[in-house]
Amino acid sequence: MANASNALLARALLQQCLYARLQVKPPERGSEAKWVEIQRGLIIYVCFFKGANEEIIPKMVNTLLNVKLSETEGGKYVSVLDLPGSILIVPQATLGGKPKGRSMQYHSNIDKETGSALYSQFVTLCEQELAANTRCTEAGVVLKHGTYGNRQVLKMDTNGPFTHMIEF
Amino acid sequence: MANASNALLARALLQQCLYARLQVKPPERGSEAKWVEIQRGLIIYVCFFKGANEEIIPKMVNTLLNVKLSETEGGKYVSVLDLPGSILIVPQATLGGKPKGRSMQYHSNIDKETGSALYSQFVTLCEQELAANTRCTEAGVVLKHGTYGNRQVLKMDTNGPFTHMIEF
Repeated sequence: MANASNALLARALLQQCLYARLQVKPPERGSEAKWVEIQRGLIIYVCFFKGANEEIIPKMVNTLLNVKLSETEGGKYVSVLDLPGSILIVPQATLGGKPKGRSMQYHSNIDKETGSALYSQFVTLCEQELAANTRCTEAGVVLKHGTYGNRQVLKMDTNGPFTHMIEF
Repeated sequence: MANASNALLARALLQQCLYARLQVKPPERGSEAKWVEIQRGLIIYVCFFKGANEEIIPKMVNTLLNVKLSETEGGKYVSVLDLPGSILIVPQATLGGKPKGRSMQYHSNIDKETGSALYSQFVTLCEQELAANTRCTEAGVVLKHGTYGNRQVLKMDTNGPFTHMIEF
């Protein structure tokens, strides 16, 4: 936890993938669903809590894009930027749930408007980091992301998701 | 957190799936990899921390199989037992990692021997609960699980993973 008051401001879940596909627009009358996809890389699920503001975004992005969780062909672990791998960002407010009886409650989650704004900033800064990284641009890796507030219809194929949670 | 001393003993991550496939035996010379698969249901990733013992298993199983996170065709949320849905249990020690610089550390994770024993008890109790549930047996849902200590090569297809974390 990164802030002085020790309150939890954001939670990210990381899963490594060989391929992932996410719906970014549900089907409607007259139009089919729209999807994005990435090949080998990192799925970042992200959830913001009450009290979070734009100050945490640079730290989150720096930590998540530089933590050494991506496996090279040789079995060594490097960051997704060093792999280099693609990135799929998935807004996942359910990660903020706490069990109460047989149900989950989301009282600590940030309001939708602020959460949506922080999510956009998070995506934008990740995009900038990727664009500024020569190894990534030369390798042609991509960043894709889900639509905040939508159902995140996701398909993934892994060589071991190697699931990690990092809180801020 | 379920125990008086407030120490974290186990962490479970839940994702809803329409289909999931997990490698339970890697390929070897002369034999192909072995896989298990489930259709619609719940993926439970589980990680045990130091201090965990068999006393927490019944509470974990009761909570995870009864929490209402599985979506019916009508859009209502019920437990995986009430859906009824199949269950895929994935040992995932990486869930116990904490970031230190650019690496993850696993100092709070339980030792492998105890973790393996607890994992077996967790799987067995889940199997017993499923077998004792008439709705589940009549619907023919199944429970499959990964091999403790192996790489968890996983493929999943979801209608929204609806990811939740529950700690014990």
